[in-house]
Amino acid sequence: MALIVMKFGGSSVGTTERMGRVAQRIVDKKLQGDRVVVVVSAMGDTTDDLIDKSKEINDNPPAREMDMLLTTGEQISVALLSMAIHKLGHPAKSVTGWQAGIRTEAVHGKARITDITPDRLHKALDEGNIVIVAGFQGMTDDGEITTLGRGGSDTTAVALAAAVKADVCEIYTDVDGIYSTDPRIVKNARKLDAISYDEMLELANLGAAVLHPRAVEYAKHNNVNLVVRSSFTQNEGTLVREEAEMEQGVVVRGIAYDKNVARISILGVADIPGVLAKIFTALAEAGIDVDIIVQSGVQNGKADFSFTVSLADRSRAMDVIGGIRSAVPYDEATYEENLVKVSIVGAGMVSNPGVAARMFEAISKLGVSIKMVSTSEIKVSCVIAAEPVQEVVRALHTAYGLDTADTAFVGGPQDRR
Amino acid sequence: MALIVMKFGGSSVGTTERMGRVAQRIVDKKLQGDRVVVVVSAMGDTTDDLIDKSKEINDNPPAREMDMLLTTGEQISVALLSMAIHKLGHPAKSVTGWQAGIRTEAVHGKARITDITPDRLHKALDEGNIVIVAGFQGMTDDGEITTLGRGGSDTTAVALAAAVKADVCEIYTDVDGIYSTDPRIVKNARKLDAISYDEMLELANLGAAVLHPRAVEYAKHNNVNLVVRSSFTQNEGTLVREEAEMEQGVVVRGIAYDKNVARISILGVADIPGVLAKIFTALAEAGIDVDIIVQSGVQNGKADFSFTVSLADRSRAMDVIGGIRSAVPYDEATYEENLVKVSIVGAGMVSNPGVAARMFEAISKLGVSIKMVSTSEIKVSCVIAAEPVQEVVRALHTAYGLDTADTAFVGGPQDRR
Repeated sequence: MALIVMKFGGSSVGTTERMGRVAQRIVDKKLQGDRVVVVVSAMGDTTDDLIDKSKEINDNPPAREMDMLLTTGEQISVALLSMAIHKLGHPAKSVTGWQAGIRTEAVHGKARITDITPDRLHKALDEGNIVIVAGFQGMTDDGEITTLGRGGSDTTAVALAAAVKADVCEIYTDVDGIYSTDPRIVKNARKLDAISYDEMLELANLGAAVLHPRAVEYAKHNNVNLVVRSSFTQNEGTLVREEAEMEQGVVVRGIAYDKNVARISILGVADIPGVLAKIFTALAEAGIDVDIIVQSGVQNGKADFSFTVSLADRSRAMDVIGGIRSAVPYDEATYEENLVKVSIVGAGMVSNPGVAARMFEAISKLGVSIKMVSTSEIKVSCVIAAEPVQEVVRALHTAYGLDTADTAFVGGPQDRR
Repeated sequence: MALIVMKFGGSSVGTTERMGRVAQRIVDKKLQGDRVVVVVSAMGDTTDDLIDKSKEINDNPPAREMDMLLTTGEQISVALLSMAIHKLGHPAKSVTGWQAGIRTEAVHGKARITDITPDRLHKALDEGNIVIVAGFQGMTDDGEITTLGRGGSDTTAVALAAAVKADVCEIYTDVDGIYSTDPRIVKNARKLDAISYDEMLELANLGAAVLHPRAVEYAKHNNVNLVVRSSFTQNEGTLVREEAEMEQGVVVRGIAYDKNVARISILGVADIPGVLAKIFTALAEAGIDVDIIVQSGVQNGKADFSFTVSLADRSRAMDVIGGIRSAVPYDEATYEENLVKVSIVGAGMVSNPGVAARMFEAISKLGVSIKMVSTSEIKVSCVIAAEPVQEVVRALHTAYGLDTADTAFVGGPQDRR
């Protein structure tokens, strides 16, 4: 008898009819003889509707009160899902985050889970119940209601799976699993049977919005077996687990791309010690996340920098750069939009030095110029013009052998240059 | 500096715009120098909408899950009201029932408050906050979320007022206060400045739906000063307090009527010991509330009984009576609808024996026959045909001197017959 955590997102329970189907799916699992803990998000547009209502009243509401407001969305979901399971003739108990023993930091809007005391869950399971936990929420030591921020329900599911020592944490979503790349632009994109935490983390950060990075980190840290699968089909899904257990020889697991990119360039920066620190401290203080940073060589005591930010942060970043000009003299600051960041991700990359070169070659063969490059142990990213992104992703998918079903690209000696 | 509990019902906060007005009203109170605890119900139709949604999923949902579902309505209200107060520049904190320390029996759907630990409220007040408590809800000793049933938010307000030793508990509603009778049918109906708990209790039970009887009982038991007033005007409202402090000599305070009445008659019941107990035990076990009971004298070893039930219970009551016929032999059971129960209520009545006679006289002068009579120390009720109810109420209002402004009817020696 396995202990399983099943997590359903808002669209899976978006209507009462869908909720009925989810209930059936949960009951099927129970009938297989498993003990089941379910984590559920707010139904469909509930959270957005609550946010809209709050804006009518106060365009800058206190974060504490937003947490009070938004946590009702998941509480409604768990109560209704429990009713749907009862309707099918099975005992179920819904619980809020605080009732589930989920403790968090004393931060509103994006608290981290500090501790879970699952006594109540175990008791309800022992009584034969399916236990349904409100995702996205917890309680501080002072009894204040908090939310976990974006991707919070994924994190709730993974954290509960770790706390109750679940055999597996299944994340139900509207796709069949993790794909080698976006199936909307590459028709040969294939669903991966398995992927490592680190690879998933890179893909999650790169805009494959299936699993939230925080949840993946939590799973990695607590060694929770994650499965990403569809709430609409019975397909197997993708298993996310420790790298050590991965297939041999796979170099590139997937190709990701991110259109939410702007490049800012600061030209002719005086090469004074501490200049870089000043620029990026100012950006960090303004709450602007900087992704890729590239510095040219120094010429005549001056250097050029480029970095990428999200499109939404572009204007503010330019303001910050303008504001520090007296402290950091430079000739000119410019920005560029209509860009895309294309990345190859794979845990096998670290021992295959030719992998990046093959990427550059595939891109340049298409006559596309690479504007920036960034690498990590399991990832290479290139910033290019947005327009040819589809051809580039398709070419990379072919270049790394991802078009052919089970054998992903295997790096050989000829690539070790 | 007074400590005041203000309670606002669902229609007072039915829209975000109304919520803004309520926030202003609360802030005005704070600016007078008072410490303010607010209790609020779910907005407008929220509770009904949630009930509808639950019915789509399960037409017979577990009471525990209904409590999980419905308590979100008040949680949404408190969060939004707190935001509205913040918008006006004043600190406020919303709390759920369990956060407010409201403990209840382990019963779902209609729990009674067993205890309140107001430490958290005092702390939030000491920090300068307006504290906004979700009405209608509490928590069991096991951490289960419960609701208090109908009139629950009134009860929350009164119980909190008792727990924090508030100077007054103000119940804001859509009427100016308690009236001598229904202003819709008697244009001279006047708002009462004050009324005793017992009188209010009779009026509340008689269908003057302004204050829930449970809340009035709680106030009486804990000696909480209650004020019923309008959330739309600045008028003074009606003070509900101990009888001892009432105006001298007032006999009849108000005239109430209740159209939700059916009369059931059981004719020719064998006069065996225990017959009455059998009939009314069977009704009680079916959850049917019986109001007035009248027994005729016994003739030829047989008696006739009549009693009233609410219209909704009429059919079930007839079924129950049919079902016990073998245990309680009788000749015939009949029912009558289109009735109304008219009542005069006044604490002074107990020492003025002519009061009831004056009522009968006023009714019979209109040619209306009285079908049943019931009396308590502070009330006389007559069941009559529904059709002449308006004339009867007007005539009684005049007969007891309630038409003239400040001097309600004062019983004199001539009435002591």
